[in-house]
Amino acid sequence: MPTVDVHTHIYPPTFVELLRSRTTVPYVRTFPDTPNSSRLVILPGEDDPSTPSTSRGRPIGPEYYDIAQKIAFMDMHKIDKSVISLANPWLDFLPAEEAGEAAQRINDDVDGLCAKYPGRLYAFGTLPLSAPAETVIKEIERLAGLKHMRGVIMGTSGLGNGLDDPALDPIYAALEKHSQLIFLHPHYGLPASVYGPRANEYGHVLPLALGFPLETTIAVTRMLLSGVWDRFTSLNVLLAHSGGTLPFLAGRIESCVKHDGHLKKKGNIQGRRDVWEILKTNIYLDAVIYSDVGLKAAINASGADRLMFGTDHPFFPPLEEKAKEWHSVNANYGAISSAFKDDQSQAQDVLGNNAIRILKLHD
Amino acid sequence: MPTVDVHTHIYPPTFVELLRSRTTVPYVRTFPDTPNSSRLVILPGEDDPSTPSTSRGRPIGPEYYDIAQKIAFMDMHKIDKSVISLANPWLDFLPAEEAGEAAQRINDDVDGLCAKYPGRLYAFGTLPLSAPAETVIKEIERLAGLKHMRGVIMGTSGLGNGLDDPALDPIYAALEKHSQLIFLHPHYGLPASVYGPRANEYGHVLPLALGFPLETTIAVTRMLLSGVWDRFTSLNVLLAHSGGTLPFLAGRIESCVKHDGHLKKKGNIQGRRDVWEILKTNIYLDAVIYSDVGLKAAINASGADRLMFGTDHPFFPPLEEKAKEWHSVNANYGAISSAFKDDQSQAQDVLGNNAIRILKLHD
Repeated sequence: MPTVDVHTHIYPPTFVELLRSRTTVPYVRTFPDTPNSSRLVILPGEDDPSTPSTSRGRPIGPEYYDIAQKIAFMDMHKIDKSVISLANPWLDFLPAEEAGEAAQRINDDVDGLCAKYPGRLYAFGTLPLSAPAETVIKEIERLAGLKHMRGVIMGTSGLGNGLDDPALDPIYAALEKHSQLIFLHPHYGLPASVYGPRANEYGHVLPLALGFPLETTIAVTRMLLSGVWDRFTSLNVLLAHSGGTLPFLAGRIESCVKHDGHLKKKGNIQGRRDVWEILKTNIYLDAVIYSDVGLKAAINASGADRLMFGTDHPFFPPLEEKAKEWHSVNANYGAISSAFKDDQSQAQDVLGNNAIRILKLHD
Repeated sequence: MPTVDVHTHIYPPTFVELLRSRTTVPYVRTFPDTPNSSRLVILPGEDDPSTPSTSRGRPIGPEYYDIAQKIAFMDMHKIDKSVISLANPWLDFLPAEEAGEAAQRINDDVDGLCAKYPGRLYAFGTLPLSAPAETVIKEIERLAGLKHMRGVIMGTSGLGNGLDDPALDPIYAALEKHSQLIFLHPHYGLPASVYGPRANEYGHVLPLALGFPLETTIAVTRMLLSGVWDRFTSLNVLLAHSGGTLPFLAGRIESCVKHDGHLKKKGNIQGRRDVWEILKTNIYLDAVIYSDVGLKAAINASGADRLMFGTDHPFFPPLEEKAKEWHSVNANYGAISSAFKDDQSQAQDVLGNNAIRILKLHD
């Protein structure tokens, strides 16, 4: 009975090299006061020059870029297969003229890493979204021919105006045509002002615990409201972190749509596919939610045949230096075993069978 | 078997009078081009002078201020008792020197409305939060002596710096001492920028469906992280809209706290009461969530003995002019009946028994 991790990130060597060449966020740098370790700074808020360099971003070690460490992590946690994806912020920040080539180079690098461990590694590719649409579509077609690629990872920014941007339609059409799933993942969070004047006292908790899932929820709701799934009825999206908060808020979203005078006047209410139908037809959810309360809501919203185990590795490592197993991983294992305590067969579907069927990981 | 509505708002005559005297948000005004109806504008984003007055805010009719209409609505939906509360934005906007007297006047007005329908109406009072702390505490003590008052409604702003503001401690202490529950309700939402450039095309859906619950979630998480419930272990809070998204995200919040190096270094992780304990000890949730998926998550997080039916009346009225029953109300009734289809006794607890026990509505 295989266990498959669909939410696990890597900064492959070609990407780290790109980040090392930069001096503005996102970047990787070795600061003079800590010559023996490098730091990865991916968010503008983490780049405050008034703080010591050791509190800027996070230390980046081999668990971020060494594929052998990914395999060791998988072995420790009895994970048979992983579908690796470039970590945020992907290539969103690149100038248009560099993005196409960078995407090819990095996707080839990742496909090559997968080839080293036959049957154990697959990947979601990265799109050069800042490049012209034809470049993006060319890369989608190219990815469809790479042996280990099983879809694409995408942030919430799209071409810069969100995932409800009509300019994305040719890209959605190409993804739908090549049956490529989108793994939708947050990065940008919410404006720092929403967390209040004491937010810094709580470390990274507010942006990580709330900003990320809320960003995902807003992005997917904008897709829903703009009719993306009415136009592309076979477009599939895997939502990170069990949908952000979509399963919990789906009822409120439907109610607000049905009670909105503006949408009714525009005629946008009649004939649309509702959020529940899309949750059960076009949306897949990972099981990175750390509680059986959340996991059961995700299952009730989308169905036990649409959830897939994930770890978010290499993020959320144990704080204790001697710890071997990762609490964060065991929390997600525990949630599955608790949610399905009366149905081990469904637990096994979420742990691995769904991913093998949905992402075609048979070889 | 009584049905009790704990989430139902009123703009009592004294409050409408106050709003009519104003020219900036929040206000009530009769615009020259619609002389036969008044409009209520409560959010800065609804006050765009470049749009026709008929799309500014919403029409305010007797369902907002006439207590007889509240009773008629209750009768239509077989609601035996309601715990009415002033609707947002309460008195947050008042200058310090006016707030104390306004709160007294409005609370007395609301208590008087309840007195007209013995046994059917109770209320949450409103605090003059912009006034000095001693004025706020005096009103808390006064409310404890008013016959129909059963706690206070509060927004997420507190004294202007959120509910994790240490300056709120004397107020929390007074509420705890007088066993007054806080009904925590959103109003401010999120900055408009998070909804993207096409947000206006979706009417009010994004701020209402997502902004409101996310605001509540951020506010309550700030309370948790600042240790409000470690200092005030008997302080009870009823969260609007089934907790915003807290039940779904509680696992992620706990995981982020446990994995935060900054909090660990500060020693803030050891000994604190965790989110699950607070959800089951200090937090109550209304059942205004419009789906059994969300409702079950709320029940799994807090327990079926801590949820209480609500309607959000007079908001979310049916769009069809001839409709009698309200879809929004029936969606919440339906969620309860579906979530508890095998346990009518628990359904009855959520519909009314819990509210009668928790809020002492025995007379």
